[in-house]
Parts: sequence; structure tokens; C-alpha cells
Amino acid sequence: MHKVIFDTDPGIDDAMALLFLHRHPDIDLIGITTVFGNASVETTTRNALFLKREWGIKAPVAKGLDKTFNPDRPHVGWPTFIHGDDGLGNIDVPETIDLPVDPRPAHRFIIDTVRANPGEVTLIAVGRMTNLALALREDPDFAPLVREVVIMGGAFDVNGNITPAAEANIHGDPEAADVVMTAPWPVTVVGLDVTTKTVMTKAMLADIAARGGAPAQLLSDISQFYITFYEQHVPDGMVVHDSCACAYVVAPDLFKVRSGVIRVVCGGLADGQTIQKPDSRLFPPSPWDNLPSQKACIDIDAAKTLKLIGDTLALHD
Amino acid sequence: MHKVIFDTDPGIDDAMALLFLHRHPDIDLIGITTVFGNASVETTTRNALFLKREWGIKAPVAKGLDKTFNPDRPHVGWPTFIHGDDGLGNIDVPETIDLPVDPRPAHRFIIDTVRANPGEVTLIAVGRMTNLALALREDPDFAPLVREVVIMGGAFDVNGNITPAAEANIHGDPEAADVVMTAPWPVTVVGLDVTTKTVMTKAMLADIAARGGAPAQLLSDISQFYITFYEQHVPDGMVVHDSCACAYVVAPDLFKVRSGVIRVVCGGLADGQTIQKPDSRLFPPSPWDNLPSQKACIDIDAAKTLKLIGDTLALHD
Repeated sequence: MHKVIFDTDPGIDDAMALLFLHRHPDIDLIGITTVFGNASVETTTRNALFLKREWGIKAPVAKGLDKTFNPDRPHVGWPTFIHGDDGLGNIDVPETIDLPVDPRPAHRFIIDTVRANPGEVTLIAVGRMTNLALALREDPDFAPLVREVVIMGGAFDVNGNITPAAEANIHGDPEAADVVMTAPWPVTVVGLDVTTKTVMTKAMLADIAARGGAPAQLLSDISQFYITFYEQHVPDGMVVHDSCACAYVVAPDLFKVRSGVIRVVCGGLADGQTIQKPDSRLFPPSPWDNLPSQKACIDIDAAKTLKLIGDTLALHD
Repeated sequence: MHKVIFDTDPGIDDAMALLFLHRHPDIDLIGITTVFGNASVETTTRNALFLKREWGIKAPVAKGLDKTFNPDRPHVGWPTFIHGDDGLGNIDVPETIDLPVDPRPAHRFIIDTVRANPGEVTLIAVGRMTNLALALREDPDFAPLVREVVIMGGAFDVNGNITPAAEANIHGDPEAADVVMTAPWPVTVVGLDVTTKTVMTKAMLADIAARGGAPAQLLSDISQFYITFYEQHVPDGMVVHDSCACAYVVAPDLFKVRSGVIRVVCGGLADGQTIQKPDSRLFPPSPWDNLPSQKACIDIDAAKTLKLIGDTLALHD
């Protein structure tokens, strides 16, 4: 059983990942923390509460702050053309949801929950790395108490998606991501090298909706806007970025990983790029030295991962 | 017939490439320009003259300047552990060679030669991009008069070699490389994505030395130091970086190329990294926009390339 805090910016593929975590029998979802990225943190928090209510999720929701780790970074606008004005595919999410939010900011919730469950909590972070970096800054000693950190973000041997160098989650707060990648906890990065190979077709999603009851139907409704966006990038369907990170937690054998120190470029042309120094390679002294080795996913059994995701999403409560 | 100016910093794999150009029947080597990198420009120029004399090469040698394009870049020392103290594998190259050097600096020689042969000259650059960038700065209109520019340098979908991000030739003068990649001439970049797959074994080199007469035997003698360095990186032999760029000129079909604008990171963690925006991919507006698309080699038929190189090096004069 994996005790999971899901750090998320729902977000359409975030919604799918949330339903995966809610329905997978080996996952004990003990917290949802929100971050800005796919939309403002006001919107992503409202969306997390909406999905919690619609899907009957018990885990508390804690809201993140509304600033990047380096507050001087300019804000560049939300990707409403990918996730809709409401962040959930323009399905008319109610403006407010009458459910309580945890009184603590997300990063404090993460620290407290990890300290209450030392060695047991897996953090799955599928938005910007802001909350995790703030937690590390506020409590520099808590990192070794985390069981595992699994991140959706980055691009190693492939191009980025927001720039030719950088993937959007990391590009949205590079200083935070560099802190998270280089902290003394075990990190696995599930990036574009594997997620872009993992495309759920429209037929697969329709099958999930037919088998998975009202929650799966809602997920399908949310996803249509995203599928329309993806028409310019894939022949049919949607890339299920965030669900890949969740699949890694329960089925790491579906992924090929490479060990090595990971740094994040902050500023300049490659701003937000993730660069790994593989442990198997020799280099002259560099800024990658004397930091913890982390895992980058470089290949995936996409067919089996999609089957795992589909079968899990279709499970009835 | 390809009229070629070879811009080089000999350098052991440079020496092999020079013998390839000298011996290939489709190459008319009309100039050798020197640049610092594998050693100081004093040393690489002396080495170019030495090889010219030993191998009976007719092309004039023009010496480059001794500063990076941005003269404020700190100098980091020569890689004597790869190319030897003399830049040619410590074979006791004479301190001076009694042959004339062209009176013009390398970049002026390049401009004049191209202007005298408009549309006909291929520039093969296998060291730092300094001379080519200086030529572009001194004569901004000459670029379209060049037939083709083929560069050994960079790393696209693989790690660098001097840092996890950057390849040594580009890292040695990133500002120059960014000028060269974005100029209005057709560039093909033969980088680590393909050169590291192209490993000449000791047996292959011994066979070339046996078949190719005294020039090939000298090349083999020069190469032993480099082979010893490469023992930590490859099971047997040496990566023939610079010869790959020469092979591309006469046999481009042995390479798989990808088209797209190429920029070079200047400064920071990824200093000297080459990043291509493939033409086939969509991105938001970025610093890669409205620049000429260039070619990056992303795969190679290494066996056929090695055979081409070996057969050419073994040709008798």
C-alpha cells in the first residue's frame, strides 16, 4: 500500500491521474495539494474540490501559494487553450464548491503529513515544483523522511514542449525544480521521454467511460477539450502525462530508468531544461558533482501502461 | 568535386580528417585554417604545417586568432590528456616547421577564398567556431556565397562530453557557434549523436597503417595516445569525430538528418549546449523563431562510414 500525497494543478490530465489514484487498490490517497500551472491556484484548488466532491474522495485538499519559488519570475499566462478557461475543459465547473480546504498552506501540509508518517509517504507531483521546494526550504530536514518523490515533468533525450529545451511543469518554476531534484530524497522523473509515447486513443477513453460509471463519464467529458488541443500533436487521442507518474508508483517495472544527478537550467535559452549526468558516464568536474543521483525515465512499455491506467479508471467504487 | 576549406585544431582526430580530405578523390582541399581548442593556436598551426609537410599537402595554411568570439570568456586550459602536450599524441613534433603561413588571419583567408569562388566552397569546421564567426562579423554578406558548412560539434539527443550538456568544440566558444548556426548559409552539424557511434578499432587502424604507406603509419603513431585516452570511454579504439564530418561531405546518404533551427546556449549550467527546434514540431513563440533551418545529424551508418574512412586513408598518393 502506497500512502500518497498528490501535488497537482487540475488540469485535465491531472483529473485522470486523480481518478487513477482514487481507484487503484494499492494507493492510499492521504492528501491533495494544489499548485498553479494549468490554471491559477484559485482555479486548481476549486477544481480539486469539485473532483473530490464528484468522485467521493476522502483526502483533504490543501491550497498552495500563488508565487514561484523565486517570486521575481515573470508570470506568462495560463494555458487555457489546453485545459480550458475553467482548467477542466470548459464543462461549467461551479464557481465555488462548498467543501472545506485544509487551513495549512500546501507545503506545510506536506511537511506535517510526512512527519506524522515518517518513511511512508510518496509524493507524486505533477504540476510545478513550487510546493515541494517551499517545503524543503521551510523544513530542510524533512526530505529523508519521504519514501519517494515521483515527478511528472522534464525532458531528457527529447525536446521540451513549452520550448525546444523545456517541459512546461519544470519551465514554470525552474528554481523550485532544481531544489527538488537535488534534495536528499529519492526522486524519479517521469518526463516527456516516456509520457509522449503514452497516448490514450479516443476509443480507449470511450471504453473507460462506458465501463467506469459516472466518474469515468465525467472524466471523459472533461477530456474532450484536451483531445481537441492534441489533434495538432498526435493522430488520435491524448497524451496522459500525469497518469504515467501514478502508474510508475504501482508498476515501476513498466519503465526503464537511468540513474544520475539531475540539474535544472535557470535562465537563458534553455530555461527550465532538465539535464542529467548519467552515473555511467565520466565528465570533468561540473555543477552536477556531489549531489544525489536520481532516476530519469527514458523508456516505457506504453501499451501495458495504458492498459493499467484504463483498467484502473474503469474500476467501480 | 568539393572545394574545401578545412578549419581545424590538430589535434589527433583532426589529423585523421586532414589525411581523409587529402586523399579522397572527390575533395579539392584549397585551404587549411587553424583555430585553438585541442591546443593553442600556435601549436595547432605548427601541427597543420607539420602534417602538410609530412603528407605533401599543397593547400595553404592560415592561422586563426587566439581569442574566443567574446574575448571576456575565461580560458580553461588545453586538453593535453586527450591530444598530448604537442597536440599530436606526443610524437616529438619539431618545435617549428619551416613552411610559410598565409599572411592573412584565418577568417580573412576564408572570406577572400569564398569571394573568389562564389557558391563553390564547402567549409568543414571541426574545432571551435571562432574563425567562421569572425568571418561573418567582418563580412556579413559573404555567408550566402558559401556552398555548405559542415561542423563537427554539438550534441542534440544525447549528453555532451565536456559537460553533461555540451560538446567540447561548441562549449569552447558558444557565442561564435550561435552566430554560425543562425547565419544565412546551409549548415549541417555532425555531433556526438553520430560520432560516438563511429568507433575505429585498433585492428582497423593497424590495417590502414599497413595498407596506406608512410602517411597512414604516421597517422597511426599519432593516434596511439588518443586511443589510450579513449580506453575509459569505448571498449576498443577511438571515436573518429572529425572524420565523420568529412565523410558527410562526400557521402551524405550515410547520415540521417533532422531539419530545424539550431541555437547555442551561452552561459549558465547548459553553456555550450546545442538545441534544435525540429521543423516538424510546434512550439509557442521562442528564440528559435525566424532563423534559418539547419540540419542536425541524428543517426549514421557507422559501419559504412568507417569503411569509407578506412578505404580513403589507405589510398596511396
